Amino acid sequence: MTVPLHDWTARELVRAMADGRVSAVDVMEAHLDRIAALESSVHAWAFLAPEAALTAARAADERRSAGMPLPALHGLPVGVKDIIDTADMPTTYGTRVHASRRPAQDATLVARLRAAGAIVVGKTVTSEYALFVPGPTRNPHDLARTPGGSSSGSAAAVAAGMVPAALATQTNGSTIRPASFCGIVGYKPSLGLLPRTGILRQAAILDQPGLMARSVDDVALLAQALGGRDETDEQSFDAEVVVDDGHRALRIGLVRGPYWLRAERSTREAIEAFTAGAATPIEDVELPSDFATAAEVLTLIMETGIAEAYRADAETHRDLMPDLVLKTIDRGRSRSAVDLLRALQTRSDLRLRFDAIAAPYDALITPASVGIAPLVVDGTGDPLFATLWTLLGVPSISLPLLKGENGLPLGLQLVSRSRNDATLLRAAAQLLLSPPH
Amino acid sequence: MTVPLHDWTARELVRAMADGRVSAVDVMEAHLDRIAALESSVHAWAFLAPEAALTAARAADERRSAGMPLPALHGLPVGVKDIIDTADMPTTYGTRVHASRRPAQDATLVARLRAAGAIVVGKTVTSEYALFVPGPTRNPHDLARTPGGSSSGSAAAVAAGMVPAALATQTNGSTIRPASFCGIVGYKPSLGLLPRTGILRQAAILDQPGLMARSVDDVALLAQALGGRDETDEQSFDAEVVVDDGHRALRIGLVRGPYWLRAERSTREAIEAFTAGAATPIEDVELPSDFATAAEVLTLIMETGIAEAYRADAETHRDLMPDLVLKTIDRGRSRSAVDLLRALQTRSDLRLRFDAIAAPYDALITPASVGIAPLVVDGTGDPLFATLWTLLGVPSISLPLLKGENGLPLGLQLVSRSRNDATLLRAAAQLLLSPPH
Repeated sequence: MTVPLHDWTARELVRAMADGRVSAVDVMEAHLDRIAALESSVHAWAFLAPEAALTAARAADERRSAGMPLPALHGLPVGVKDIIDTADMPTTYGTRVHASRRPAQDATLVARLRAAGAIVVGKTVTSEYALFVPGPTRNPHDLARTPGGSSSGSAAAVAAGMVPAALATQTNGSTIRPASFCGIVGYKPSLGLLPRTGILRQAAILDQPGLMARSVDDVALLAQALGGRDETDEQSFDAEVVVDDGHRALRIGLVRGPYWLRAERSTREAIEAFTAGAATPIEDVELPSDFATAAEVLTLIMETGIAEAYRADAETHRDLMPDLVLKTIDRGRSRSAVDLLRALQTRSDLRLRFDAIAAPYDALITPASVGIAPLVVDGTGDPLFATLWTLLGVPSISLPLLKGENGLPLGLQLVSRSRNDATLLRAAAQLLLSPPH
Repeated sequence: MTVPLHDWTARELVRAMADGRVSAVDVMEAHLDRIAALESSVHAWAFLAPEAALTAARAADERRSAGMPLPALHGLPVGVKDIIDTADMPTTYGTRVHASRRPAQDATLVARLRAAGAIVVGKTVTSEYALFVPGPTRNPHDLARTPGGSSSGSAAAVAAGMVPAALATQTNGSTIRPASFCGIVGYKPSLGLLPRTGILRQAAILDQPGLMARSVDDVALLAQALGGRDETDEQSFDAEVVVDDGHRALRIGLVRGPYWLRAERSTREAIEAFTAGAATPIEDVELPSDFATAAEVLTLIMETGIAEAYRADAETHRDLMPDLVLKTIDRGRSRSAVDLLRALQTRSDLRLRFDAIAAPYDALITPASVGIAPLVVDGTGDPLFATLWTLLGVPSISLPLLKGENGLPLGLQLVSRSRNDATLLRAAAQLLLSPPH
């Protein structure tokens, strides 16, 4: 039985295209066919450019035929969340306010994608302003359910085999939660590993790009190609994200964290069954009780950020903006600078202490979401189990290792201390390939 | 004629001690003698530990006698501003509120000083809370005048030959201005090059340690020994600060900047005479008019920072706090989070644009202070000519290259784009050794 091209991993596709076993046009056509077959039920895309994608695929094949050096993502089809700027496609932030927005240039991440040979197939659906109001996207595992948000289209497109990889973002839980709901790998690197220039700013202190694919190796491949210092993003830094193949004894902990009891019982049981079955004992790691302030602290930083970043739109297009967004702006405007500085100090303090607690471990297991994907009518799900890690800016990854009710996907999240991405990814790859059971 | 030990540079002293041409005890005694002779008129020190310093000097000599490897600052006497924690000496922030404060551990910079073999002679006077109320220190060049602030004692001690080098800090103009007034080299590295852990926090977004010495080579020596990532300061980064000896054609510009007309006429004339006499033409570099917002933006960030950082003291010791500090706290408390975020965005935007403007130059010349040191009764002087560079977090250095009224010292400031410290220091060293005239 042959595995269809739309089920191959990004790494497999790039290797096969570079070796000439498949052409970039074949790969692109396989994915465009998949999109054509499923898009009317999944609604993952805000914009599609199939002709441009095929033209780019032909150019990739020609580079290979001409014997030119092939870049790291040669011919790879990718989706890009519709809050990340693309010079050749609209970027609308999922809102009518910016329905006609055409950015003048690519976001740094998109420019690096293209420089590495990847081909942007289209823009994936985001919830409105990457906030609360969902787009039309459905969960490919159950069309009555949400794919999660705000990176709804990226998660659904990867889960449906429409693209092997996609760019997402996370300011609270917008990469980890949809990855959990859609049964894919969602990786939110350390704050600063991926530059943010050209991405909708929500809260500069929290906004973090994310990567979605179907294997850990694939998100590592993307992180290697896209990471590194960008002088236009002061948080960005240079980092090596090389995941070696060696199998080692992993030091894994289980950190239930401050919100454990807000996970559904079935989620808690699934995680405890998973860790109980591990060959090497998995140690319980406790966080001091004040880590429970994370949600409040993140909310303050996020709402004040939104109030600052979206104020111009609220002034000029109040009638087109969702009530929930306007209310968030009002809450953000009511906070004092001292409140915000106190929140930032708490964040620094928690990060420092978490880094010390996490230092002995390659990775810590924790829930990725409260439970499985809710029904569409119930919204995009609760970001709570991503909140602490987003606030701290530590690396986190959701792995499709659990099953929830109705056999639907449920992610297992791994987190690690700040800037420990390479170790986290190595642990994640090993765990996904050789789970305890 | 022999140059007395207290006039040697830090580099000369370390080399001579390492070679055995002088002992660490001789060096320490020469400086302690100098302190004994001048301290009653200069008042540079908040605390002195001459016995401990001599004990440490004897230990340094013994390490050398035993043939042990000698660290980069072997035996070097240094002064440490009294807002930087020392485990073996008080750190009082220049205020009665903390008169009995004895930190449990060294600040990262102090720990690195000691690890590099330097010997802390004592704590240098700071203005109260590193703000507006001066300490007793006088300018060694004219005892009726201020040494500047808030790093008053560090500047005066270095200028008087009491120590070859000292640690300072700058949140607005507290390194550059006293260096200008005291005729020494004051170097404020790029934000993050020197870690801040264990230093009084005023505004985490702005606080930057500074280095004072009598040559560019000396501040570079200290920066090499003290710089580099500290996991407990999230702004800190790894950097190489190696200043090579090669003489090159320098690309120098003159950036009068938004506040040029607020410099005294004699200061403007001195700078223009300096640049007019250069062998290689010095190009005029213009900044767009909105760079004039720097002072307002820095004030907002600084006052909200002070309101957050000093609030506990203001609650518990209101009666002991100067009115000016309490008023600053009140102003900071009145600002909104959105105001602060807007200020931070303006800062990011200005930095990005300045980095592009400064990119073609090794260094840009600009005033270091309005003029010479004011009389003591008139306060510690205006920080204005450091404000923009502190806000941007770019590297800056004041060089004792000009003379003002009464032949008193007047600094010439060099600045450069973000994290361009090594190039800036090379240009500064060359300019100080071979000025145009």
